[in-house]
Amino acid sequence: MLTFTVEKADSAARLGTMVLPNGVVHTPCFMPVGTQGSVKTLTPTEVAEAGAEIIVCNTYHLYLRPGHRRVHAAGGLSKFMGWNRPILTDSGGFQVYSLAALTRVTDEGAEFQSHVDGSRHMFTPELVVEIQEALGSDIAMCLDECPPYPVSRPDAEAAVARTSLWADRCSRARRPETNLFGIVQGATYADLRESSARSVAELGLPGCAIGGLCLGEASDVTYDMVGRVTPLLPIDRPRYLMGAGYPEDIIAAVRLGVDMFDCVLPTRNGRTGTAFTSAGRVVIRNSRHADDLGALDAACDCYACRNFTRAYLRHLFVVGEALGPKLLTLHNVRFYQRLMQDIRAAIEQRAFAIWSSEFLDRYQSGGEPTGQENDR
Amino acid sequence: MLTFTVEKADSAARLGTMVLPNGVVHTPCFMPVGTQGSVKTLTPTEVAEAGAEIIVCNTYHLYLRPGHRRVHAAGGLSKFMGWNRPILTDSGGFQVYSLAALTRVTDEGAEFQSHVDGSRHMFTPELVVEIQEALGSDIAMCLDECPPYPVSRPDAEAAVARTSLWADRCSRARRPETNLFGIVQGATYADLRESSARSVAELGLPGCAIGGLCLGEASDVTYDMVGRVTPLLPIDRPRYLMGAGYPEDIIAAVRLGVDMFDCVLPTRNGRTGTAFTSAGRVVIRNSRHADDLGALDAACDCYACRNFTRAYLRHLFVVGEALGPKLLTLHNVRFYQRLMQDIRAAIEQRAFAIWSSEFLDRYQSGGEPTGQENDR
Repeated sequence: MLTFTVEKADSAARLGTMVLPNGVVHTPCFMPVGTQGSVKTLTPTEVAEAGAEIIVCNTYHLYLRPGHRRVHAAGGLSKFMGWNRPILTDSGGFQVYSLAALTRVTDEGAEFQSHVDGSRHMFTPELVVEIQEALGSDIAMCLDECPPYPVSRPDAEAAVARTSLWADRCSRARRPETNLFGIVQGATYADLRESSARSVAELGLPGCAIGGLCLGEASDVTYDMVGRVTPLLPIDRPRYLMGAGYPEDIIAAVRLGVDMFDCVLPTRNGRTGTAFTSAGRVVIRNSRHADDLGALDAACDCYACRNFTRAYLRHLFVVGEALGPKLLTLHNVRFYQRLMQDIRAAIEQRAFAIWSSEFLDRYQSGGEPTGQENDR
Repeated sequence: MLTFTVEKADSAARLGTMVLPNGVVHTPCFMPVGTQGSVKTLTPTEVAEAGAEIIVCNTYHLYLRPGHRRVHAAGGLSKFMGWNRPILTDSGGFQVYSLAALTRVTDEGAEFQSHVDGSRHMFTPELVVEIQEALGSDIAMCLDECPPYPVSRPDAEAAVARTSLWADRCSRARRPETNLFGIVQGATYADLRESSARSVAELGLPGCAIGGLCLGEASDVTYDMVGRVTPLLPIDRPRYLMGAGYPEDIIAAVRLGVDMFDCVLPTRNGRTGTAFTSAGRVVIRNSRHADDLGALDAACDCYACRNFTRAYLRHLFVVGEALGPKLLTLHNVRFYQRLMQDIRAAIEQRAFAIWSSEFLDRYQSGGEPTGQENDR
């Protein structure tokens, strides 16, 4: 139920095609995040028109509300949310650790209290697979243990061991047609990353993810870890670096052989007023934009850039109109899809190295202080 | 700069065409409200696709932010907000009374403190015309004094006198090409309404508005006042009942010869989760919709009704996703435009009385308790 074809390679960077039950995805791809069954502020039509071929939704959130059985009764998540394209669901492990209260993790599973109503629940590897199968996910993720950064070596070792144990149980619990991805952990310990990658590769699952990075470590550490892991993963399976979202990080990871990305950055930053543009980041509330009758990004073809000035977009944010966050989200989602289109075109032409250095020169030359320099 | 043609009449109800600098408006029309230069949650494309030919923006809000000079420098309000159709601007008098602090009203004008930053300002009839001319409004409104409901007869008399004085000053201050509308006041005093209507008619302005109604008085009082005023207004000028928004009220006022309407109801109720449907109002958060896989309104052709179930729309509201308020707003705006299309078709066929009784039977038969029964 998942066919992945590497069409072309440019050093380690790969151009691929992934066929999933709900459609085709061209890789390297960026998956906008629709945690609760909605890419925040956007209609599914807008997400598709921006060029996204697959989105990420969250098992933890959808299990709590509206409940996976309800979504199943509505015909599955794609149909429920009016998005007739592929969906990858996060296992929810990360959210259990970061959002839920009173989490107690044992080898059996993760016990937690709902952040919504305090009710008690337990996620086991088997249940997490069952939920994702009920949701009808095109790609389901194994339950993993994702420690925060920094983490001690013993804790990182324990997380790798448990993640491996759970991956095995997830794999045995799944229906044959379920496209389950394993997850590499190991924090920033090179040897743990490598042994975790080997263990994930041995599972023979249709795809492999790299989790537990982009959590605050320096970016050269991120790239070092990714570079150690990708050569150990099956060459014929898609590789997904979870949570990587800065254009710089995506470009670096593609160069190391990563095929799939997701991050809340384009949507979250859009809502709070920071736009990604071809000349760097723009903080639309800045007074310098008050009388600027130019487009947010003259190089962009999105609805926001074609129809509105920076002066108007700034006005919407200043007065608190919902259209402002929506238009910047729309722009950012389109910016990321254009970035991936450009990356794919560069690999196609075996010119990825040249393209990326040109892109980064331009992207890093402009931009404004965002007050968010530590959110990398 | 305003041509109004009554194409057909069915008793007092009129089918008309109004030609304005930025486009043609078919009447009776409903104008969605875009107070701060945005119909809340919607793109201008969505507002146009819903069928709206004209919207209402607010002089008070736009004067404060972003400032009328800034909008003028951007090419006027239609261009600034990406809405290339007509705009009517409220004079802002109502907002000065309802939103601003420390208002002091004399015959000279209304002194107020901004609700945004406490800065002091004074609206005179001349300034309000100047602001609206800078905004490039297709239709500008006279500064009026709109007392709350209920109001004593002496206060109502004083408001009528001042409104009349100010209308005269607005009329003299305007450029010849400015489409200025006078406003009838008089609260719920029939003789004051009639004398105010005669005074507005005498100004010879291109259109006449009825203000100070739909403020909490019983609807038969509203209709009585409207019915006394419309016969006194020029038959060849458009008549605008300010703030009337319930379908029942619009239908009653059309029957009395009103051509134009505006109200925050479809947008505000959409944001808070109440939908207007052909079978009455629907409160989407109600648990009865949790597993309802039907459309919000099976008779509606809007994007929300064509693509989503009540179960999904409810989920969006329950989890607080911005797409929920947006989709219900889109639906409500479309519902109102379809209502007006149906009203116009009924007048065209000289079947308005029959159509309206059939519509109201259906509309009033269904619907849910909204907890907002007093917001009429």
